[in-house]
Amino acid sequence: MRADREQVLRLLKTARGQIDGIMRMVDSDRYCIDISTQLMATASLLNRINADVLKAHIEGCVQDAATLGTPEERHEKLLEIEGVIDKLTR
Amino acid sequence: MRADREQVLRLLKTARGQIDGIMRMVDSDRYCIDISTQLMATASLLNRINADVLKAHIEGCVQDAATLGTPEERHEKLLEIEGVIDKLTR
Amino acid sequence: MRADREQVLRLLKTARGQIDGIMRMVDSDRYCIDISTQLMATASLLNRINADVLKAHIEGCVQDAATLGTPEERHEKLLEIEGVIDKLTR
Amino acid sequence: MRADREQVLRLLKTARGQIDGIMRMVDSDRYCIDISTQLMATASLLNRINADVLKAHIEGCVQDAATLGTPEERHEKLLEIEGVIDKLTR
Repeated sequence: MRADREQVLRLLKTARGQIDGIMRMVDSDRYCIDISTQLMATASLLNRINADVLKAHIEGCVQDAATLGTPEERHEKLLEIEGVIDKLTR
Repeated sequence: MRADREQVLRLLKTARGQIDGIMRMVDSDRYCIDISTQLMATASLLNRINADVLKAHIEGCVQDAATLGTPEERHEKLLEIEGVIDKLTR
Repeated sequence: MRADREQVLRLLKTARGQIDGIMRMVDSDRYCIDISTQLMATASLLNRINADVLKAHIEGCVQDAATLGTPEERHEKLLEIEGVIDKLTR
Repeated sequence: MRADREQVLRLLKTARGQIDGIMRMVDSDRYCIDISTQLMATASLLNRINADVLKAHIEGCVQDAATLGTPEERHEKLLEIEGVIDKLTR
């Protein structure tokens, strides 16, 4: 992975902490709307981490393949990005 | 919370396990596209849990307020649902 | 429909104008990234109109059913809202 | 634009027809939930067109820049894709 690994791990740790918090909210019978708000915040954080990972991937691996790779490698990398865009637009 | 608490906790545990798995993927330098795929899957799972929590809330608290609550309580519950829809459509 | 009809029609007219603009961009071979940006802006506008329609529906029909309807009518309205939330969280 | 222009224009025409249909639904005071369903369908169609445009862009312009462009051109194309991913993950 080419993204700043420490930064990604830190954000993943935050997301895990948020899920732990949501489990405690469920356990202590907290109000559904507050639980829902926290679930949306954690999903947003995961989307942001995903954007960071993908941008670092494009700056790193895709850029390298475009510069140094064979035409097949370049094409494969671009097909992968198309696959990501397909999932993100669904 | 009115959703089936055991079911919600079980799904949250799955989401936390997925995040642990993603952290191991980052640690062992796995391919970005695979990490991205897992991040999207976990965000989808959180969205599904959110839908479950909200549906149980509507069947439970909102239904009760509509049946037994004062006009103010009913209105407050409906305003909360509007707030959720606002966030979900953004 | 309970939303401010003039306001909803005005926004829909804006969305249609944006689609006409995108068709002209395609016809005159404009740059893909600019076309993509416009497509996302128009989808966002439709999501905003959807939020407006749903909020007015909740303030209007659902509120009325909660106040005046039979238990069956109330329940049906709430089930419809659950269906909307299901689609929005997908 | 590198996407199949006729196909994109046909889908845009469909989206415009759907918006015209929604305007008629609003005019004839159709039920909000049905209007909401149509708004979501049209937003989904625009997202699908966006995916088609972006994939054709990557297969075309980005692929060409990766093969024939200067390092600066390649980098610029990749930065644009990062910008798109940023918007799509929001």
